[in-house]
Order: sequence, then structure tokens, then C-alpha cells
Amino acid sequence: MTGALATDLYELNMAASYLRREMVGPATFSLFVRNLPPGRGFLVASGLEDCLAFLERFCFDEDELAWLGGTLGFDQPALDAFRRLRFTGEVWAVPEGRVVFAGEPLLEVTAPIAEAQLVETVLLNQVTFHTAVASKAARCRISAGGADLVDFAFRRTHGVDAAMAVARASAIVGFVATSNVEAARRFGLRAAGTMAHSFIEAFGDERAAFRAFAEDYPDRCTFLVDTYDTLGGVRAAIDVIRQLGLRDQLGVRLDSGDLGALAVQTRRLLDQAGLGEVRIFASGSLDEFVIAELIARAAPIDAYGIGTKMGVSADAPYLDSAYKLVAYGDRPVLKLSPEKATAPGAKQVFRAPDAHRELVGLREEPAPEGHEPLLVPVMAGGRRTRPAEGVEAARARFQADLAWLPDRARAIHDPRPVPVAFSERAERLREQAREDVARRVATTR
Amino acid sequence: MTGALATDLYELNMAASYLRREMVGPATFSLFVRNLPPGRGFLVASGLEDCLAFLERFCFDEDELAWLGGTLGFDQPALDAFRRLRFTGEVWAVPEGRVVFAGEPLLEVTAPIAEAQLVETVLLNQVTFHTAVASKAARCRISAGGADLVDFAFRRTHGVDAAMAVARASAIVGFVATSNVEAARRFGLRAAGTMAHSFIEAFGDERAAFRAFAEDYPDRCTFLVDTYDTLGGVRAAIDVIRQLGLRDQLGVRLDSGDLGALAVQTRRLLDQAGLGEVRIFASGSLDEFVIAELIARAAPIDAYGIGTKMGVSADAPYLDSAYKLVAYGDRPVLKLSPEKATAPGAKQVFRAPDAHRELVGLREEPAPEGHEPLLVPVMAGGRRTRPAEGVEAARARFQADLAWLPDRARAIHDPRPVPVAFSERAERLREQAREDVARRVATTR
Repeated sequence: MTGALATDLYELNMAASYLRREMVGPATFSLFVRNLPPGRGFLVASGLEDCLAFLERFCFDEDELAWLGGTLGFDQPALDAFRRLRFTGEVWAVPEGRVVFAGEPLLEVTAPIAEAQLVETVLLNQVTFHTAVASKAARCRISAGGADLVDFAFRRTHGVDAAMAVARASAIVGFVATSNVEAARRFGLRAAGTMAHSFIEAFGDERAAFRAFAEDYPDRCTFLVDTYDTLGGVRAAIDVIRQLGLRDQLGVRLDSGDLGALAVQTRRLLDQAGLGEVRIFASGSLDEFVIAELIARAAPIDAYGIGTKMGVSADAPYLDSAYKLVAYGDRPVLKLSPEKATAPGAKQVFRAPDAHRELVGLREEPAPEGHEPLLVPVMAGGRRTRPAEGVEAARARFQADLAWLPDRARAIHDPRPVPVAFSERAERLREQAREDVARRVATTR
Repeated sequence: MTGALATDLYELNMAASYLRREMVGPATFSLFVRNLPPGRGFLVASGLEDCLAFLERFCFDEDELAWLGGTLGFDQPALDAFRRLRFTGEVWAVPEGRVVFAGEPLLEVTAPIAEAQLVETVLLNQVTFHTAVASKAARCRISAGGADLVDFAFRRTHGVDAAMAVARASAIVGFVATSNVEAARRFGLRAAGTMAHSFIEAFGDERAAFRAFAEDYPDRCTFLVDTYDTLGGVRAAIDVIRQLGLRDQLGVRLDSGDLGALAVQTRRLLDQAGLGEVRIFASGSLDEFVIAELIARAAPIDAYGIGTKMGVSADAPYLDSAYKLVAYGDRPVLKLSPEKATAPGAKQVFRAPDAHRELVGLREEPAPEGHEPLLVPVMAGGRRTRPAEGVEAARARFQADLAWLPDRARAIHDPRPVPVAFSERAERLREQAREDVARRVATTR
């Protein structure tokens, strides 16, 4: 449960100052990714459900208020104002599972400015992390072609909660299962897993270990074969499968060495033994690059367990995300900092079916002919406007967007995103706001 | 609260098989980092407190058991065995804050094998993540020389819980404060933070925003000066400081542009205004490399806010960690997989004061003359042998080890770790175990 103190101190400072001055005009903040990391041709929007759950519960409890007063020195009027605070605003967002690009708002909050400011840290945190991981997992999904993918990331994610988010994000982009039992329970995913090297070592003998496992789990026998010598392990698995007459859901797992060469040799041994139905499962330091290479070498691998590199999005562990004030009261707002300048006004993303160009326009402008608006209202008056959804809906959206995504953006090596342009009206507003700000700055100096 | 289902499915499969066969002999698992990531000359042990808290609480609740039976199909004997399970083992570990190297056990668990196996996922997860971040933060601390460092990572860590761990890890290595309010409350850290660009934009006028802030927080006035034009912002801050006669804890924050050049110009403006006591605070995409360059350019920066790149350990977001069975019953154990071979037996790390070479030996062997053993007993019979400790103790250990750490391992560019060797007895045990295993594998084929 994420409480209201899950925030940066400056959010509290600013919120108290706003409340003290009765600055309660509606502010719109826009959450977007400024630039894609190198090696990314698209992003998969994710993290919205956790944001909405956080906003619905947002409030300060008495322990938190006492600490803010006692330790941080907030005065009684500030504490009283915090005590009354709930999130009462509206949220527009790109639904989870949709493909998006740099510069496109993923989420926009409109609320009295103190509320909208206080939730910045958690919203940025959630959307950035979930989207980064979903995008990495999507690339793995693309590179693996028809093979099944299983989330193996739990042991090296950035904490236990991160592991839950990773299982969910990978499920959204089409992973068929996760090793993470709690995530399987929480999100209704399929749990998968068999044995570790320690199991073989504890029995001291591969055949004894495989037989014990087959006795206990005859319906999920994937034998880990590389504890001592991979092909010897495959032969042991073949012996046990034959001796026990095993039939269903059989597999062997390769976890070290040259996976491509070993898969070919393993397939040959299995086929020679008449075990064409036994699947080959590969794991160990996999990512989209390694899988693409294995597939280019025609390695006969049926399923991959993908762990660490997906779970921490190893080559791009964060996104250049921002949560920027774009309107306050009736005034569009922007900042001029070099390389971090922002664009004013509540926005909308318009998607063309031909995928040649995306358009970022103002929310109030009509969609150009044939274009689909990506942001939809998801919260009003601090309450969801649609019920919480499971992984399935997001997965369906990702499937549909993946079919739309052009090859150049899907590419594993040197991808090129769909270009994003500003609409004429958005451009015009930016120019006006820039002039207004420049004038205002000049007159106050 | 991390429950017993926070684990990989294979741990449950294996544990149930062990319990069914009454395989309750003590197993020792060793948790270590196989290789340092490129660009790391040392690691800072971290994550132990969360591991011990998890182990002390470890149990399955009835909801979890019902789900394991109903959805995953574990049978009644397995569920009954799980219901009775607690962690009853012993743990030796390197205390948090100590400097360690690749190949050195950070933590060793000895317990009935099912218990020791089930906790693998969470222990690996916690130690890997906390240690990776503490090590990155330590490099930032080293590069910043005498400047103060503040944790600004919350908005881009891998979730909210990760942000708490990052605040704690950075405090262990000497960061003086965190922007993360909940972490400050939870771990007794100093919270720091002032204002965002949105604050200036909401007022529409830098001077008005600075004046409002100074009115509300006269004791923590760090003015963010780059919303429109950095040096113009500095002049506005100077005007407000003079007009209001501000005196205490004054600063300006630079968040964009060429921080080195801007710091020089800012310092000059402040000094010309007789405001030599106003500190310059820098933020924005900082890490140890950027800070080292700023310091090499003699940028007059008094404090740095370090966020994302530290909080996700951007250049090394994971460690090549492992949790390996090294003994079961009275038998040393190892695996032979290429490049992942393990070394048998419960171990100890012996540190020489001259820092020329570390020795990994067996736990049972005496420390060589003048050497300090790094692993200490922290849990016995499933209970801590020493009270839970705060950040201070770990911070003191890091300070002491940092004074010991040779320059080549501390280097920001191309660091070289202290070499680690195996003791004669550890080598001998490895050779014996390797021969035993080879013989056993040969006879079962």
C-alpha cells in the first residue's frame, strides 16, 4: 500500500504553499517520455492500473501528519490542509498495452494544483518503470517468433514488488507464464517452473533426481540437464522418460553452454529416441539479441525462460520521462530550460492507420479524418470511470498494436520509431505561450 | 510484507519433493556474485536486514495454501508440510556496508534443505538489488569528494519499494539526505527538497515564486533558477534574498545546461552580491562520471542531487549473483556447468589489512595471521543473533572499509578490484568434490 508520504519532499513544500495561498485552480500535468532510449523503436504503455489505485486511495493518515509536523516542521494550517486532501481530479491516459512513442503523453492529470503536484513522484515512478519493462519484454516477444516465453526475472529484479510488476508487464506483451508464484496468484497468470541444479546435487545422481521429480509431478516434467554435462543429462532424461513411460508436457532445459549447438544435439538425441514431442526449453542470460541469434541459427528451441535482462530492462533500465505542468487556471504553461523545454496545453495523440506519422495535438481539437485518439478518460472526480481491468484487456491491445507497428520500429537492431509531429494548433499554442512567457519574464526583470 | 509465495515455482516443487521424501538434512547455500560488472572495482554488501526480516516471518498462510492446492495442484501432504514450515536455519553474512568482491560469499544459509531452497528467490533478489545500488551510490560518493550528496532517485526507481531501498543504500554510503519522504520517515534519514519548475510556472514569475517560498520556508530556501534562463534566475534569487534579508541555509539549484560553466558564473554573481554563503546545488542526469568531470573542471558546486542513474544503477542494473548449494548432509556439493561451476563447502572470507589479496577459505579453517573474517553469524534457529540495526552501523562500516580500499579499486574509470584467491583447504575440497562427482556421474551412466 503506497501512502501519501511516498513522494519527494519538494512536492509537499509546493503543495503546502499552494494550499496556504488558496491556489486551487485546476492544473494539468502531462506525463511523457522525452526521448526513446537507444535501441528502442517503440514503447508499450504500462503502469496505469497501479496509478489509478494509488490515486483512489490517496490521503494522509494521522501518523503521517504527526511526523510531518514533528519532524519536518510543517505548521498546523498546512497539516490541516493535508488532512482534508483527497485526489479529486480527472485523468486521461493511453490504456495499458498500447504502443506509444517519444513525445506522446501517456497520462494527463487535471486537478487542483496541490493534488496534481503531490502525486507526481508515484505516477512518474510507476509509468516509467512499468513502461520500460513492458517495452523490453515486447522486444523479447518479437524476437522469439513462435516460441513460448516465460518470465524468469524474479531473483534479480529491483525488489519483490518490482518482480510482480515485471511478471505483469511481460504477460501483457504475450509471455505465456511466469516463475513468480505470487504474481501468478495476484494477476491470474500461469505459473511455470521445474527444478534447479541444487535438486540434482541433493540427490547426487541425475537419474534419481529426475525419477523423483517425475513421480511427484508427472504432468510438468521439464528436466534440467546441464548440472554436470548437458548431453549426458539429456541421455539420463531419455532413460527416465522411457523407464517411467512419461507422456505429457515433457521437456528438457538447457541453462549453460552454447545453447544453439546443444539444442541441435539435444533435438537429435530426443528424436533418435522417438521422443519428438519432448520440448527443448532454454534459459540463461537471454534477451532479444541472444534469442534473435539463436533463431537465425535455426536452433530447435521451443520455449525460452527470460530473466534478468528483461526484468531490469538491462540495456535501458529507465526512460527519460517527465511530468510537466502544461496548463494552470486558464493559462497554458511551459518552461524554456535548454533541451528540456516543454509544450503547453492538454493534449491528445492521433494515430493514423498507415503508421507513417503520429500527431500530437490539443485535447480539444477534433481527430483528423481516419485518425484514432489514443488518450481516453479513465478517472473523473477522483474515481475511475471504468472498472479496474486485468491483464487480458491490455494483452489484446498490445496484440492489435503489434500487428499495426511497422517493421522498422519492431526491428531488434537499429529500430526506427514512427515519427511524431505536433499538430498545427499545438504548434501555434506553443509559439503563443513562448512569447507570453518571454514577455512576462522580460517585464519582471 | 513479503509472503512465502514470493518465490519461483521451482522452489515449491523441489521443497515439496524434499519434504515428501523426508530429505531434511541440513543444506548450505552460498550467495555470492560470480563476476563484477564492467566498471566496478568493489561492491558494498547490502540487503541483509530485509533478508533477515523475511526469514523471521517466513510462513504460508491459509489463503496461500488453498491457492497452492486449488490452482497449482499441490496435494494434501505437500500442503500440510508447507503449513508446518518455518525458517529454522542459521545464517552467516557479511554485515551491511562492508566492501566485498566477486567470488566472496555475501550470505550463507544452513537449514533443512526445503527451507533453504524456498527462500532462495527473495534472498537473491534482495542482496543483488541492494548491493548493486549501494555499490553504484558508493562510486558517486567517492567521485564527489567533499561535496554533499542527496538521493533524488524516487521518480525513476523500479517501483516505490525500490525507492525506499535506494534511499537506504545511498544513506549507507554517506549520502546526507533523500528527497524521499517515506524513506526519511522509515529509516530516520534527513529529507531534502525545495521546489520544481512547475512552482515557478504556477506563479508565472520567478520573483513571486521565490518570495512565496521564502515566506513559507525561510529555513530551507534553495531556489531553482533554470526555468527560463539560468543566470536571470540567479539574479532573481539574489534580489529576493536581499529584499527579504534571508540568511540561513540558502542555495540555488542548477538543473540543466552546462553545469560546470553555469556554476562558475553563478558563483561569481553570488559573490559579487556579497552572498558568499549561498550554496550551489546541481542536479540533472548526474552520476559518478559527470561529477568527476565537474570536479576536474573545478566547478564550484557544493552539493549534488543524484537521481536515476544511481537509483537504477544504470550502467550495471544487476549483478551476476548466485545462490548455490555447497553442502548437503555431510557431503560437499558442486556443479560442473561450463562457466558456472561452483565451489563446495561453507566458506569464510579472510581480509588482510594490506589489501593486496583476499582469501576465500572454508568456514571451519582458522583465519590466517592478521586476517579478519568477514562473515559473522547473524541468525541461528531461525532467530536473529543480534538486534536489527539502523543505517548508522552500516554507514560506519562503509566509512572504515572505504579508508582501507586501495585507490585502484576506488577508481572511477577502469577500476581494478582486489584479487581474490581460494585458500589451500578450499582448493583441496573443490578438487576432491570434483573427483567425487565425476566418479558418481560416471557410475550412474
